[in-house]
Amino acid sequence: MRKKEEGKSASKLKVIPLGGLEQIGLNITAFEYEDSIIVVDCGLSFPEDEMLGIDLVIPDDTYLKDNADKVKGFVITHGHEDHIGALPYILKKLNVPVYATRLTMGIIENKLSEHDLLGTTRRKVVSFGQSIVLGQFRIEFIKTNHSIVDAAALAIYSPAGVVIHTGDFKVDYTPVFGDAIDLQRFAEIGRKGVLALMCDSTNAERLGFTASEKTVGRTFDSLFAEHKDRRIIIATFASNVDRVQQIINSAYKFGRKVVVEGRSMVSIIETAAALECLHIPENTLIDIEQLKNYPNDKTVIITTGSQGESMAALSRMASNTHKKISILPGDTVIFSSHPIPGNEKAVTNVINELQMKGADVIFQDVHVSGHACQEEIKLIYSLVKPKYAIPVHGEYKHRKAQAKIAEELGIPKERIFMLQSGDVLAMDDDSAEVVGKVPVGAILVDGLGVGDVGNVVLRDRQHLAEDGIMIVVLALDSYSSQLVSGPDIVSRGFVYVRESDKLLDEARLLVNEAIRNCLDKGQTDWGKLKSTIKDVLTEYVWKKTKRRPMILPIIMEV
Amino acid sequence: MRKKEEGKSASKLKVIPLGGLEQIGLNITAFEYEDSIIVVDCGLSFPEDEMLGIDLVIPDDTYLKDNADKVKGFVITHGHEDHIGALPYILKKLNVPVYATRLTMGIIENKLSEHDLLGTTRRKVVSFGQSIVLGQFRIEFIKTNHSIVDAAALAIYSPAGVVIHTGDFKVDYTPVFGDAIDLQRFAEIGRKGVLALMCDSTNAERLGFTASEKTVGRTFDSLFAEHKDRRIIIATFASNVDRVQQIINSAYKFGRKVVVEGRSMVSIIETAAALECLHIPENTLIDIEQLKNYPNDKTVIITTGSQGESMAALSRMASNTHKKISILPGDTVIFSSHPIPGNEKAVTNVINELQMKGADVIFQDVHVSGHACQEEIKLIYSLVKPKYAIPVHGEYKHRKAQAKIAEELGIPKERIFMLQSGDVLAMDDDSAEVVGKVPVGAILVDGLGVGDVGNVVLRDRQHLAEDGIMIVVLALDSYSSQLVSGPDIVSRGFVYVRESDKLLDEARLLVNEAIRNCLDKGQTDWGKLKSTIKDVLTEYVWKKTKRRPMILPIIMEV
Repeated sequence: MRKKEEGKSASKLKVIPLGGLEQIGLNITAFEYEDSIIVVDCGLSFPEDEMLGIDLVIPDDTYLKDNADKVKGFVITHGHEDHIGALPYILKKLNVPVYATRLTMGIIENKLSEHDLLGTTRRKVVSFGQSIVLGQFRIEFIKTNHSIVDAAALAIYSPAGVVIHTGDFKVDYTPVFGDAIDLQRFAEIGRKGVLALMCDSTNAERLGFTASEKTVGRTFDSLFAEHKDRRIIIATFASNVDRVQQIINSAYKFGRKVVVEGRSMVSIIETAAALECLHIPENTLIDIEQLKNYPNDKTVIITTGSQGESMAALSRMASNTHKKISILPGDTVIFSSHPIPGNEKAVTNVINELQMKGADVIFQDVHVSGHACQEEIKLIYSLVKPKYAIPVHGEYKHRKAQAKIAEELGIPKERIFMLQSGDVLAMDDDSAEVVGKVPVGAILVDGLGVGDVGNVVLRDRQHLAEDGIMIVVLALDSYSSQLVSGPDIVSRGFVYVRESDKLLDEARLLVNEAIRNCLDKGQTDWGKLKSTIKDVLTEYVWKKTKRRPMILPIIMEV
Repeated sequence: MRKKEEGKSASKLKVIPLGGLEQIGLNITAFEYEDSIIVVDCGLSFPEDEMLGIDLVIPDDTYLKDNADKVKGFVITHGHEDHIGALPYILKKLNVPVYATRLTMGIIENKLSEHDLLGTTRRKVVSFGQSIVLGQFRIEFIKTNHSIVDAAALAIYSPAGVVIHTGDFKVDYTPVFGDAIDLQRFAEIGRKGVLALMCDSTNAERLGFTASEKTVGRTFDSLFAEHKDRRIIIATFASNVDRVQQIINSAYKFGRKVVVEGRSMVSIIETAAALECLHIPENTLIDIEQLKNYPNDKTVIITTGSQGESMAALSRMASNTHKKISILPGDTVIFSSHPIPGNEKAVTNVINELQMKGADVIFQDVHVSGHACQEEIKLIYSLVKPKYAIPVHGEYKHRKAQAKIAEELGIPKERIFMLQSGDVLAMDDDSAEVVGKVPVGAILVDGLGVGDVGNVVLRDRQHLAEDGIMIVVLALDSYSSQLVSGPDIVSRGFVYVRESDKLLDEARLLVNEAIRNCLDKGQTDWGKLKSTIKDVLTEYVWKKTKRRPMILPIIMEV
């Protein structure tokens, strides 16, 4: 550490969000002080509608690769995909240690194992209250509450000051598992002076307080009491271990056996149970194959598919394509979830299908959020009393709502930073300002390909999706440049070919004429021939159909 | 009319919904009594996400065409797209008269004129309280309230009894324009005995009463008072004439000039003003070109785009692609609307963009629904007291919610019909049952093509959208069947070609080898050659990329 004059740091602390400020997902932030970089979280995001065929999206890691010698490790706040999902992809190129709490690490390890990275990745499980030293940084893990067990906030100590990063959090005074959020510690660190607070903005538009997870348990109890003579199927988020715990508790209380269905849920429950974050009474969990041995009103099925995902277990039950469970008239199906924006229609479709099969579907008021509402955000600000506010985790509108709260709480407007991903915010006790910009972006993952689908390919997919393709093939003699075969037209995704003979025949004649014209005039340049074909066909097809299929001329030389 | 014994009809009345029961949209119902058919509404729906490239969807009219000699006319409840949008398409094949109230007809005429059908379509404007006779039917138009002026319920009188069809409605005791819903008339007809009630289910899941449209006017007044020194931009539904009226009223009150922007809104406002359904004080409306002549705080812009539609005026302003209006820091943008399910993300994206440009965006509590909530539905049931209940206008879950209400109100379960589109419900005073099924379905409109894009084309578009296409071309000698050119591989939407040379080269070599193998063995059947190419390439590409592009082999004969 360089020499400091009267408590003033030699350098500034740089906070560099590499994603996560334009959308929900892609959470990853670099903290840089001189020769040390630590990275908080490494999340993926799910593709937008227009990203056709894309499986998932990961952040651009150019800045980290370019500064690989400085990067000391990844510090992870909790085990949700939008905070850990990109780890395997980035660790492949940047092998640094990963630090996380117990369940978070358990989930990360499942992921690393799928990518064959378990043997090569250094990992350290950190307890709440514990600190780790990484280069010029010290990072303390602070207990919070969230919709997944073992979520942590981070106090990031640097020579230029302390930053508190809340991770995703809520204030739950009566959590299902483990302790309530460590408000005293937030206060203690705040008392000593905090440079900046980076706080979760997801629910910053919502008034009041998020209810305790335990309230959902009471709802389960009354639903179980009310639906005593029916089979109960409950869909929820695979990673919400506390929710699953409460369903198991209610099932046990009402003498029902529990089946867990859906690959991701089975995996997380196994991990959580092995780490003792989940307590399953003996003889409660049964295998799906045993379901037939129990009366319907003595069983509960906990399943994935609460977001209407077409391949998830619940959707397959609803559409009668699940191999082992069919919806029966009289089943009670409970959505213990809320549709994530963009999934509303898919969820509604599943509800319709379930109701058509005679199920009673309950889809309201059996869920609480995992994120802090306005009053909780105010509480954290009031305990931490940061000099600078950097709203994170949310679209612009969510972060703007938090900025408004921060201002109401007395933080001057010029000390509230509405950053964009890639901004380099340099700060110390004297000042804070954006001093630069690093490369950021969304890298698309499609199958095994990482980054090989970019704008050109996506634009082509969109074009193909919109109006299909017409392929014109023809063969030219390599000596005389005369047409020796074709032009033939093959189309896909354009019109139903059998009923459009006339259209395609006419198109072929037109193209044939245009090519012969060119060749007769001695125009044998392939580029020109191709653009003639495109022009003639585009115009004809637009006139006849008002569509613009992709037109692809292919010339062969014989 | 056949002879009746003691008030008993000779035949049964058939109610045949030809769409609208599986989704919002495609509202069209045939009523058939012996040799007479009338059709209530003729709506379109907007394409689902998986209907790639489709512009709109219209109902299958097979049943109407097959019974063309019986069809007496279309009776339209109101001027929304989901009730009138398919008229031009179906009238082209079935030229029968159209009956509607004044503004509804005005909007229909705009549509017919676009399709060059104005000269050939017989039309009759009907007043509230008036009846029309069509074959064995008499149809009375009853005043209701909805989010468009001049909405009607229909009392459909047949020898087998009366059916009341509410159309889309709400109960507004203090409407902005015209009278409140004619509850007395519902009661009067109910008193005499109603066979069946077909009631709007859109809001059947919502408790209570929908608020009066006038409440939104009061909200505008207070927003205008609060934002005195700012330009105000308000997005709402183009067809909500009352909403526009109230914005104009507030603007006038606060001394602001009004600009209307967005093609569909301009068109409906012109029609409504010409029919005196909208009253614009003199010197209030200005042209968009005049905007620059007024201070910002003296103007209001009413615009389309409240659903985040990418091509609508508001979205273009937000993304800086609107030619005449840019969002300025300090603008107040009001969404006087609620996102229609499926549009949530698009709306949120526009809000983010507007906020990033410094606009203050208000998007909550400046809207009321146009549909009846549970208490209003109960009211109508209690006035009409139908023998049979047929919940309409809604997905299954909405209709099921209404069925539950009907049951609570004492209608026996077996008299409540959860129909599917295509069901033929035959009824009279003695009984009602589904006696058959007619063809129904969604006809896709893409550009000028109506019905030429079906499942095959859509499946191809989905395949192309997902992973793109690889085209393999080769030329064979027509005598020797020897390869004289190729195989060449061209791909689109698969990988970025410049960075995937190796992959494509290897693929070409593999295909080349496979073809030569076949030819060497004398296998010259094109079908077999093509399937060999597909198999070899599919396997190779899957192994290398875990993708499944469409593979299209094209063989030319030279």
